[in-house]
Amino acid sequence: MNYKMIANLIGRILCVEAVFLLPSAGISLYFREYDTIFPILISVLLMAVIGILLMKPKYKADYYPREGFIAVALAWIVISVFGALPFYISGEIPSFLDSVFETISGFTTTGATILKDVEALSKGLLYWRSFTHWLGGMGVLVFVLAIHPTAKGSGQSLYLLRAESPGPEVDKLVPKTGTSAKILYGLYIGMSALQFLLLALGGLPWFDNLTTVFGTAGTGGFGIYADSIASYSSYEQTIITIFMTLFGVNFTVYYLLITGKPKQALRNEELRLYLLIQVVAAGLITADTYHLYPNLRQAMHHAAFQVSSIMTTTGFATVNFDVWPEFSKWILVLLMFVGASAGSTGGGIKVSRILLMIKSALCERRRQLSPRKVSVVRMDGKLVSDDTLRGIWQYMAFYLIITGISVLVLSLENLGFDTTLASVAACLNNIGPGLGASGPIGSFADFSDLSKVVLCADMLLGRLEIIPFMMLFAPSNWGKH
Amino acid sequence: MNYKMIANLIGRILCVEAVFLLPSAGISLYFREYDTIFPILISVLLMAVIGILLMKPKYKADYYPREGFIAVALAWIVISVFGALPFYISGEIPSFLDSVFETISGFTTTGATILKDVEALSKGLLYWRSFTHWLGGMGVLVFVLAIHPTAKGSGQSLYLLRAESPGPEVDKLVPKTGTSAKILYGLYIGMSALQFLLLALGGLPWFDNLTTVFGTAGTGGFGIYADSIASYSSYEQTIITIFMTLFGVNFTVYYLLITGKPKQALRNEELRLYLLIQVVAAGLITADTYHLYPNLRQAMHHAAFQVSSIMTTTGFATVNFDVWPEFSKWILVLLMFVGASAGSTGGGIKVSRILLMIKSALCERRRQLSPRKVSVVRMDGKLVSDDTLRGIWQYMAFYLIITGISVLVLSLENLGFDTTLASVAACLNNIGPGLGASGPIGSFADFSDLSKVVLCADMLLGRLEIIPFMMLFAPSNWGKH
Repeated sequence: MNYKMIANLIGRILCVEAVFLLPSAGISLYFREYDTIFPILISVLLMAVIGILLMKPKYKADYYPREGFIAVALAWIVISVFGALPFYISGEIPSFLDSVFETISGFTTTGATILKDVEALSKGLLYWRSFTHWLGGMGVLVFVLAIHPTAKGSGQSLYLLRAESPGPEVDKLVPKTGTSAKILYGLYIGMSALQFLLLALGGLPWFDNLTTVFGTAGTGGFGIYADSIASYSSYEQTIITIFMTLFGVNFTVYYLLITGKPKQALRNEELRLYLLIQVVAAGLITADTYHLYPNLRQAMHHAAFQVSSIMTTTGFATVNFDVWPEFSKWILVLLMFVGASAGSTGGGIKVSRILLMIKSALCERRRQLSPRKVSVVRMDGKLVSDDTLRGIWQYMAFYLIITGISVLVLSLENLGFDTTLASVAACLNNIGPGLGASGPIGSFADFSDLSKVVLCADMLLGRLEIIPFMMLFAPSNWGKH
Repeated sequence: MNYKMIANLIGRILCVEAVFLLPSAGISLYFREYDTIFPILISVLLMAVIGILLMKPKYKADYYPREGFIAVALAWIVISVFGALPFYISGEIPSFLDSVFETISGFTTTGATILKDVEALSKGLLYWRSFTHWLGGMGVLVFVLAIHPTAKGSGQSLYLLRAESPGPEVDKLVPKTGTSAKILYGLYIGMSALQFLLLALGGLPWFDNLTTVFGTAGTGGFGIYADSIASYSSYEQTIITIFMTLFGVNFTVYYLLITGKPKQALRNEELRLYLLIQVVAAGLITADTYHLYPNLRQAMHHAAFQVSSIMTTTGFATVNFDVWPEFSKWILVLLMFVGASAGSTGGGIKVSRILLMIKSALCERRRQLSPRKVSVVRMDGKLVSDDTLRGIWQYMAFYLIITGISVLVLSLENLGFDTTLASVAACLNNIGPGLGASGPIGSFADFSDLSKVVLCADMLLGRLEIIPFMMLFAPSNWGKH
């Protein structure tokens, strides 16, 4: 194990985090929250000093897959613990575990909160809380790669990109990993700016606008009001619906669009299924909840918003969907597991994994019926490798086991079947609100410490798609190889 | 498609069913239920006549996998519809759908009932209802193979055995399929007889004894009393606990034991995990429910009984576990999905599939860490083929999709999250009682017709492990090939 190289990478990330935390101090200054400025600056200093110390030792850049996976897993734990410092030092979140929960929820773009009264938080920390969504959405390491690609061999870079990017396969947009990372962040910043512009046109104040864009772009879901975004205008909610859906699309599609390959972009099978599921789910929920709203337009509006919010794993709410009939609630629970597209900022199992599972099951049927014919799985016209398929099944096996264990631990609290299952689903799939006690008008505040620790682990496992952590826990990885 | 050959097989099965239904008339005669005898005899006649007609046309025995799968799927539908006749003709179950539900529940060894008052049923039909468990447990086609192996090529026989036997792989005990089927039924009859003897020693009346043995051996769970077997003595319940567990073991283990290979038998990895899970689960539930019972012995007794009953997918109940704390209930729900061993009479996903999923996920991790080394999956010291692993993942993909669809349909009834999920789990995994409305003291009587149809499909899909039905619905299979 190349410990020095991993330390160097984590050092660099801490420095990046320090730089990104700094503006929060400016926000607090602007809003005259003088009590918050000092704790933020202390945190910035701690990140910078420890970051620089970790970067000091010289290292040899010899590289194996395990270093990539383990560096990513450790990096995410470290940034979450350090990112929690301003909440804890300022005393605005009195418990350190709660501060870490909130920060993990931010970086993993989950949006589950332990705050009972989010409006009591200072503006500076509300900004930081929402910004973690934006940074975590596209990936912290991808950002580091974009600004400072490792000179020594692109092997390392690719492993990092692969470990942090969601989905069964990672397409580099262009041969160079560093350039791919730059393009991804370019698209990400561009789309975020466009959403900001459209919301500004609707008259949303700049601070609300900024935090909402962070929450949408990262498909995170932290709001700055107790009722999430229910108080926003219908125009604003519609813009958010559209952008949530857009940020849940594989960014490769956008790259193809802007490089003049619209046909290829729209032939993307995952995109088609992703949009089809949203339309069908929204239609079914509209029919099921029609009687709860004054007219069809409103029922459609809330159904479309909630489907987009849950499937892209954002977790914003315009209504308390916990009071919807069971059919609609189960649709939402199933969508929680399906999740968004690979290569997007969304979480969940991912549409492409579901699609490939179905395709490989049907391929197996062809094989059983005609054992002598060659049966293969294709996606977007390309052959899908056995490695990719085996990777999906590995992911699913761990995923089901983790779900089972998490549900068992949470059930010790006797909160009811829906709360237990939906809380695990909401955290493991990086959505945010669940049902019942953890529903859109509730919070995770009253869960036991044990449950919170398990849910923290679920959020990290969900965001990094399990495998890096499984590497972390492989004892054979530690020590010299 | 070789329609005539399939018709011939189904004809043979109907004749077997007629022969097995006949004793019910004797039971009714013995208990002087003269109203029931005639409907039973009519049903016997219908089965026999139609069976003989189907066997008439001559056929060529050319054989492909599809014929095997489709014959099995159709055979199970046909025996369930015909097996429902005595319930319906006698008027003891007024609705035909309910009669079919009860019969499917019997043959698939589910044990879910639509009867609100089971004690109102005549003894003749109670006998038939329980006997369907016994026949369905080891397999109807396996029975046909045992008494009358197809002369022309063992290809056909093997396909039938494979389609009806649970688990990821089918080991023939001996090279000849017909002989394997004979051995399996021999073991099955022997163990049933032993259980009958032990229960008789405890003083259980012969009719109670017989139906209980049928329910235990097939891991079915139909009882003849409203409180399942709560009124039975502690000795009787203990015997049943032990035999449920025994019937949930892969019968290959018993074959190895009686042929003098005890070491090989006890090295079976599935057996070890199966027993380990039972012990751990019973221990956890004992700790969780200890406060509900007067002493530790009773808590252990009920925990062990219920774990064995649910994991082997039998579904007998000694207590109403719906009132247990949520932790214990989730353990039972997870066990519902795990199920019993491959090659046993139990249902569920099967311990060996779970074990192989974990093994192949860990194998994949080794492969990712050391791409150049060869990583393989082994079970009981033998290499597991890629075909077997792909078959497991195919099964899991269909399984998850079916669970999702079934839950959505049932949720239309707004019965609560636990009832909805546990009802689907109880039927798809062939257990019987679920939680809430479908719990051990409830029944499936009040479900809508739509839900009942879906649950019927789930029971059949669960018993035959999905694949035969997926073949039935492959349009390319119909017509000439």
